[in-house]
Amino acid sequence: MGKAPDRSQWAGNFGEWFHRVLSEVPVYDIRYPVKGTGVWTPYGFKIRKEVTDVIREELVKRGHEEVLFPLLIPEYMLKKEAEHIRNFEEQVFWVTHGGTTPLDVKLALRPTSETAIYPMFQLWINAYSDLPVKIFQIVSVFRYETKATKPMIRVREVSTFKEAHTAHATREEAEMQVKEGVEIYSRIFERLGIPFVKSVRPDWDKFPGAEYSVAFDTVMPDGKVLQIGTVHFLGQGFSKAFDIKYMKADGGYENVWQTCYGISERVIAALISVHGDDHGLVLPSRVAPIQVVVIPIVYKGREDEILRACVGVAEELEKAGFRVKLDDRKEETPGSKYFTWELKGVPVRVELGPRDFDKGTAVLVRRDSLEKVTVERTSLVEEVKSLLERIDLDLKERAKKWLDEQIVKKEDLEDAKKVLESRGGIVELNWCGNVGCGQDLEAKLDARVLGIPYEDSRNPEGSCVNCNSKANMIIRVARSY
Amino acid sequence: MGKAPDRSQWAGNFGEWFHRVLSEVPVYDIRYPVKGTGVWTPYGFKIRKEVTDVIREELVKRGHEEVLFPLLIPEYMLKKEAEHIRNFEEQVFWVTHGGTTPLDVKLALRPTSETAIYPMFQLWINAYSDLPVKIFQIVSVFRYETKATKPMIRVREVSTFKEAHTAHATREEAEMQVKEGVEIYSRIFERLGIPFVKSVRPDWDKFPGAEYSVAFDTVMPDGKVLQIGTVHFLGQGFSKAFDIKYMKADGGYENVWQTCYGISERVIAALISVHGDDHGLVLPSRVAPIQVVVIPIVYKGREDEILRACVGVAEELEKAGFRVKLDDRKEETPGSKYFTWELKGVPVRVELGPRDFDKGTAVLVRRDSLEKVTVERTSLVEEVKSLLERIDLDLKERAKKWLDEQIVKKEDLEDAKKVLESRGGIVELNWCGNVGCGQDLEAKLDARVLGIPYEDSRNPEGSCVNCNSKANMIIRVARSY
Repeated sequence: MGKAPDRSQWAGNFGEWFHRVLSEVPVYDIRYPVKGTGVWTPYGFKIRKEVTDVIREELVKRGHEEVLFPLLIPEYMLKKEAEHIRNFEEQVFWVTHGGTTPLDVKLALRPTSETAIYPMFQLWINAYSDLPVKIFQIVSVFRYETKATKPMIRVREVSTFKEAHTAHATREEAEMQVKEGVEIYSRIFERLGIPFVKSVRPDWDKFPGAEYSVAFDTVMPDGKVLQIGTVHFLGQGFSKAFDIKYMKADGGYENVWQTCYGISERVIAALISVHGDDHGLVLPSRVAPIQVVVIPIVYKGREDEILRACVGVAEELEKAGFRVKLDDRKEETPGSKYFTWELKGVPVRVELGPRDFDKGTAVLVRRDSLEKVTVERTSLVEEVKSLLERIDLDLKERAKKWLDEQIVKKEDLEDAKKVLESRGGIVELNWCGNVGCGQDLEAKLDARVLGIPYEDSRNPEGSCVNCNSKANMIIRVARSY
Repeated sequence: MGKAPDRSQWAGNFGEWFHRVLSEVPVYDIRYPVKGTGVWTPYGFKIRKEVTDVIREELVKRGHEEVLFPLLIPEYMLKKEAEHIRNFEEQVFWVTHGGTTPLDVKLALRPTSETAIYPMFQLWINAYSDLPVKIFQIVSVFRYETKATKPMIRVREVSTFKEAHTAHATREEAEMQVKEGVEIYSRIFERLGIPFVKSVRPDWDKFPGAEYSVAFDTVMPDGKVLQIGTVHFLGQGFSKAFDIKYMKADGGYENVWQTCYGISERVIAALISVHGDDHGLVLPSRVAPIQVVVIPIVYKGREDEILRACVGVAEELEKAGFRVKLDDRKEETPGSKYFTWELKGVPVRVELGPRDFDKGTAVLVRRDSLEKVTVERTSLVEEVKSLLERIDLDLKERAKKWLDEQIVKKEDLEDAKKVLESRGGIVELNWCGNVGCGQDLEAKLDARVLGIPYEDSRNPEGSCVNCNSKANMIIRVARSY
């Protein structure tokens, strides 16, 4: 692993660092005149595209088909599932007029699409041979956030919402699908080098309308937890509300069993945050809009031959399949170019000056550690390839190691509180499992119960950290976005 | 060119044919409970994706960068350009509430994004070195249509709106950009095999806020004209309303010159309509989700060897880069499979039965003409490749020929009216150029003036078909969607 990156600003004032990176790269312009919304700039859009392509690839590989549903949901449809609307009704943007005409039926901007999609499932699903149904869409969803908004993290237009919805013949199949959803998300986050913990959310914090929710959390540089993905087992709640039945092989009818799972641009916020440093973005190669930047180091009298050599290098790398940029701007110094491409997170920089030219070498600089290595021009493609792989692995490992350090087990409420107040992160505690006790614990710690570790065989010993009765499980607690 | 396709239903009752194809393939489900909206099904979404990829490719090739702007536009922003809002104010959906709270500022669902994008141009553009700016986005836009809606053609949620927006230092550069926009669109429609005419829209029908608009029209099977793309020269109207200025090389300031151009899912409606026939969709290979379907013709006792051979054929074609489907369903007859894949518009079908197996051949069936040809198995890949190219060319030529037949020149108003009433299409007339006369002509013909031919060197002879004064130009008239 390379040198540790410069991270004093990143760690010292994460909020400011994050805003600065978004606006200086630029990735996402928050000056748009509607609170809680932003503009994906050309470079930001390219990162977004690579990330959504990774999500698509993993979903399609497991048999999910992409679709596109309308934005607007009639009020009566949004209200069909009681729990669901209770949770969302204060968060919904309402369209009430077309031109100057009041609408007969108010239309909601989807806050999520269960109530848009399931009426169509009711039409599409007739017999067991129609099952399973596994679809997804990538759309904007809207939530009237009353809390302070934060770019990409707490927004009113979630502009990169990937939601999958599935329907199955039996409870068992649907629960298997939850497992598949969890695997798909794990794979997506691993490919992006984003470390995570999986928790089964407590009953009082599950998705409205779900039987249970499995959530992916990561820790941001300021120690606050960010939820980056959720997988929900819906049981038959929605299928009963929307009357989605299928004819079984024996001729009888049954309501389908459902799951849904979602990821938003928070995954991009996490990607930027877990890997970044004081120089700006640090991007894994899979999602870097530019993977290699070639910079000529020009000396008087030798400009032409150096530039020609750089053109050759760029072409060779491009032919090998890399996304390459040749920065041949004459009015900029090499130093100013380094600054630009480091800010934009390009994983590898190739420098080529007269000395390299004469010796048949080139200099490669890793974005993550800023380490330099001189390589033979004849083996440049292989060197770049293996360096990119190395960087991706190191980024992933470093982020994983960092997250591991943010998780501590505590046996005492006071200790837990101290940790949460001083450095944040995730605290694991022994817990009885009682809802009242859990909510009391949240109040005492001024923190959120993330839930119990998903697929974790550890058994708690001793007593509940809050009520002193027998501990039945381990619970995770954190301050969160 | 192959045999003429069966088109009695297609021509006889186009509206019904179009609805049937959309719902039976299915492409787009209009049963969603909000008028003027629809659901892109998995297969429909794949067609949509291929079409948007073609659009993206052509725009990116000419230096356009993709971005993503918010959906919601504050009322005061939408109203900045006077002409623009005058045209759109009766068509805008308004968000007035967040939860139960009335919003301070009403928010419009974008009817198009000039007024969302140009406030950001004002922030992004400072000096001549920032120009030109050439961006695009693919988003949903919303229009409260009060006329009868029609799937994909007249909708309230335009769910596949590609809009490009550019800014330039001079009028000349912006007008050159209009030409580039027209070339890009021509290239897109040509790649999709959609024939078109280009007209400069009359002043009373240009884009609100534009100096002039160039429109692409095609003729649908029922003789009605469908506008499938528009390119607008905006001059400095918006840049003055939104105060978008740049510093010139000499230190002075000037407002930028702008263009914008848009294409919607109407291009997909046109694609489906111009190529289709009574069996369903007929898709050019570039946008066919499945390019080749392989169907085993199974005889008792030889099932396994035939199926194995078909697996081999499918793999070979896939390896050669085609999008392939092997239909190995045991419960379906070959005839029922033909029906299915013809409906879905798969360009080439490969049939392989025992006789072909023994002789080392396979049968290829073209979707467009349903003609069969027997080919050697050893040259299958090349045969399929050249057949797909042949089909694409023939589709394009046939559609072009059909459109040419729908355009007639008439010297007399009565003749023009007869044509428009009996068979539709486009009628070209000699015209004086006077606005009042043009609008009078629209009323008399109960038709729309499409405009004057774009980049057409023909000169009119004689007198205006309506007012008898000297004819100065040729004008196109049609009944339109």
